[in-house]
Amino acid sequence: MRHEDIISAKQLSRADIEGVLDRAAEIAADPAAVADRHANALLGLCFFEPSTRTKMSFAAAIKRLGGDVVDMGTVESSSVKKGESLADTVRVVEGYADALVLRHPMEGSAQMASEFVDVPLINAGDGAGQHPTQTLLDLYTIREAAGLDDVSIGIVGDLKYGRTVHSLAHALTNFDATQHFVSPESLQLPRKVRYDLHEAGATIREHTDLDAIVPEVDVLYMTRIQEERFPDESEYREVAGEYRIDTTTLAAAADDLTVMHPLPRVDEIAPEIDDTDHAAYFEQAHNGVPVRMALLDLLLEAQS
Amino acid sequence: MRHEDIISAKQLSRADIEGVLDRAAEIAADPAAVADRHANALLGLCFFEPSTRTKMSFAAAIKRLGGDVVDMGTVESSSVKKGESLADTVRVVEGYADALVLRHPMEGSAQMASEFVDVPLINAGDGAGQHPTQTLLDLYTIREAAGLDDVSIGIVGDLKYGRTVHSLAHALTNFDATQHFVSPESLQLPRKVRYDLHEAGATIREHTDLDAIVPEVDVLYMTRIQEERFPDESEYREVAGEYRIDTTTLAAAADDLTVMHPLPRVDEIAPEIDDTDHAAYFEQAHNGVPVRMALLDLLLEAQS
Amino acid sequence: MRHEDIISAKQLSRADIEGVLDRAAEIAADPAAVADRHANALLGLCFFEPSTRTKMSFAAAIKRLGGDVVDMGTVESSSVKKGESLADTVRVVEGYADALVLRHPMEGSAQMASEFVDVPLINAGDGAGQHPTQTLLDLYTIREAAGLDDVSIGIVGDLKYGRTVHSLAHALTNFDATQHFVSPESLQLPRKVRYDLHEAGATIREHTDLDAIVPEVDVLYMTRIQEERFPDESEYREVAGEYRIDTTTLAAAADDLTVMHPLPRVDEIAPEIDDTDHAAYFEQAHNGVPVRMALLDLLLEAQS
Repeated sequence: MRHEDIISAKQLSRADIEGVLDRAAEIAADPAAVADRHANALLGLCFFEPSTRTKMSFAAAIKRLGGDVVDMGTVESSSVKKGESLADTVRVVEGYADALVLRHPMEGSAQMASEFVDVPLINAGDGAGQHPTQTLLDLYTIREAAGLDDVSIGIVGDLKYGRTVHSLAHALTNFDATQHFVSPESLQLPRKVRYDLHEAGATIREHTDLDAIVPEVDVLYMTRIQEERFPDESEYREVAGEYRIDTTTLAAAADDLTVMHPLPRVDEIAPEIDDTDHAAYFEQAHNGVPVRMALLDLLLEAQS
Repeated sequence: MRHEDIISAKQLSRADIEGVLDRAAEIAADPAAVADRHANALLGLCFFEPSTRTKMSFAAAIKRLGGDVVDMGTVESSSVKKGESLADTVRVVEGYADALVLRHPMEGSAQMASEFVDVPLINAGDGAGQHPTQTLLDLYTIREAAGLDDVSIGIVGDLKYGRTVHSLAHALTNFDATQHFVSPESLQLPRKVRYDLHEAGATIREHTDLDAIVPEVDVLYMTRIQEERFPDESEYREVAGEYRIDTTTLAAAADDLTVMHPLPRVDEIAPEIDDTDHAAYFEQAHNGVPVRMALLDLLLEAQS
Repeated sequence: MRHEDIISAKQLSRADIEGVLDRAAEIAADPAAVADRHANALLGLCFFEPSTRTKMSFAAAIKRLGGDVVDMGTVESSSVKKGESLADTVRVVEGYADALVLRHPMEGSAQMASEFVDVPLINAGDGAGQHPTQTLLDLYTIREAAGLDDVSIGIVGDLKYGRTVHSLAHALTNFDATQHFVSPESLQLPRKVRYDLHEAGATIREHTDLDAIVPEVDVLYMTRIQEERFPDESEYREVAGEYRIDTTTLAAAADDLTVMHPLPRVDEIAPEIDDTDHAAYFEQAHNGVPVRMALLDLLLEAQS
């Protein structure tokens, strides 16, 4: 991998992705082997939006490599309140760290920020844009559960606004995966994303009925449907009910169906699924640690 | 000690308590001996309520053992804002850490959360419920100052709502301690707590007059009386004045009387006491570090 | 250096300052040599006000020395909300750490706090008072760029309220530096500061016209002029425009003019300056790490 910055899943080739996932698998198999590998490394955390799992798993990742973080803290406790520009903030913080992680509400912000700094910068979500490390941990989870080739994946829920979904769908075009998109009509894939996927040679199908695809897929990737996307609450509730899975919904599923979710979930997956062998969503969140360790290892290694 | 989770002081036997306190004393005597003992351990901090001393001393404890924390941050900066359940949050965070510390406003939350996770979980306060590590550091402080057997302890202030007091009082029933409870009538021990203490064979006395017990006790454990417990401010001020100590109040005390307070104090102990040999409340707060080091050491040791 | 606490730049002699700057230069030249120097040290961070660069660079500094932080967090997430006094808070936190860093909105707070604790305390800004580590990194930057003797420095902007400026100006009286102060009349140096500088034997000039001094100085130290200092917005905008530099303003400057700014900037320095050799403000922020490493090293060394 020859990238200094990780801005978008689109920049990653199949070989890049497999390089990260292979390294992550090695690390997961023997974490003690890397426990002091980057003992003097500091990772700068610049989170301009709330985050639990992304921020915590980046912190766990660098610490599991022997390094540490320097954290900007919340926007409220920082100079951003005094009107500092993003370009200035990241140019200051790069002096405190060996690599930066940036989450920012504005699409394109990570690309822009990366042009101002010399240390590697990882995009941890730029508004409606990209979130490439989420995509890598999703791919890792799919690969562990079902393989990435000759696999059939149902992606369910809000396909219109979900950056996680767009990023994953695009990355999957590097592999021999069939993608079934399931959503209410008002939340279908944006035309541009659909076009991009076709251009990349993806095999995709679009559906509105969840039950129809349950028996056909190896992986069901559920996403949260947000109430604020709907003009009124009753419409939201109807849709939310239709794209929710429980043991009844999954009665027709293959025994080895894998259920994923980027979390947090609200009501998309009934708690009764948690104790079944289908449930992979907590493991998926945990996979963020070895995957981010692998990525940080590759970036920091390339620096030194 | 064979407990995977530390939920309540009630679960700890006399032998458990003495095991933790003995280990804490060893550690306090020679902290350098354990400085790298848990060099790869990560402690997950899930604080759903503000905290200074509990959170900082857990962080100091794991760091003094060579480990580190991964911190969920404030509720405002986390996924909790997106409606995630506590059970989901702790199941995610357990993937980032080797043990969890939970503070949550809801009584019973720590017990519930512990049923969802496999790593050890320590209750750092669950609303009106338990706060067992506070009890352990209180016991450690009492043992250092006056011993835990053949000791007479005055517990003063808000005995109705104070979880710290209930927890300590119950733990003291494992020892040969006489407990004097001193409070205004409206803030006396709840009937249930009094009953539990009698059942456990406690020797207790209840008082409304602070001056009467000052000459009799080895330890005075002061607590904060909160204004919001009173219908009007004048009533509060009268009560607060009565259960406040200063050098005049302590004129009749034994020379080796030990004054404790879980802190923060507002006005319960006059600053003039700070410089006397009676004052043990800052040392008490500091004891949180070796006591939590001991507890973490025992839990992490049992895991590995 | 024989100071246990670093409260004010005024307490530092020329020899003290040179001792810190020399040590900082050594560390900057070979950071790996000190990477484990204070492996068991914990630095307590008590920030009662927002901060990005000061807090992050203290954290980076102690971590680059092999140590770690225990952070009180924001005031909102701490016991301060429960009415705890500053004296009590620092006496608790000193039990968790080997040294403390305090930022507090009240002038004099650091001095007061230092009287209550036994561990070294560093003032990281006390309201309109002092911020000695900012001064040290400013001096380090000036020394690297232009030397501290036989140097001419223009200090521009809000000279009335800026604690950074007062502190730097005073520290410069230890050296053979000529200071040109440039500000609108309403934001000139306070009479007391001017008097102190004269007493200390400073060579100072005061100006209202920025252009007049640009050709004469080796260093231009820009500061932020805050809108809230002006009765109306139009007056602010006129002043802000006059004390802003861009390539036109700097056309008459020496080739090796160094431009500094304590940051965050708003509009005082045009972005086009960033890519010129004049710009030293990001490097200045980055210098906070070796300078604070040097100071922490000296304080922790003296303790052990």
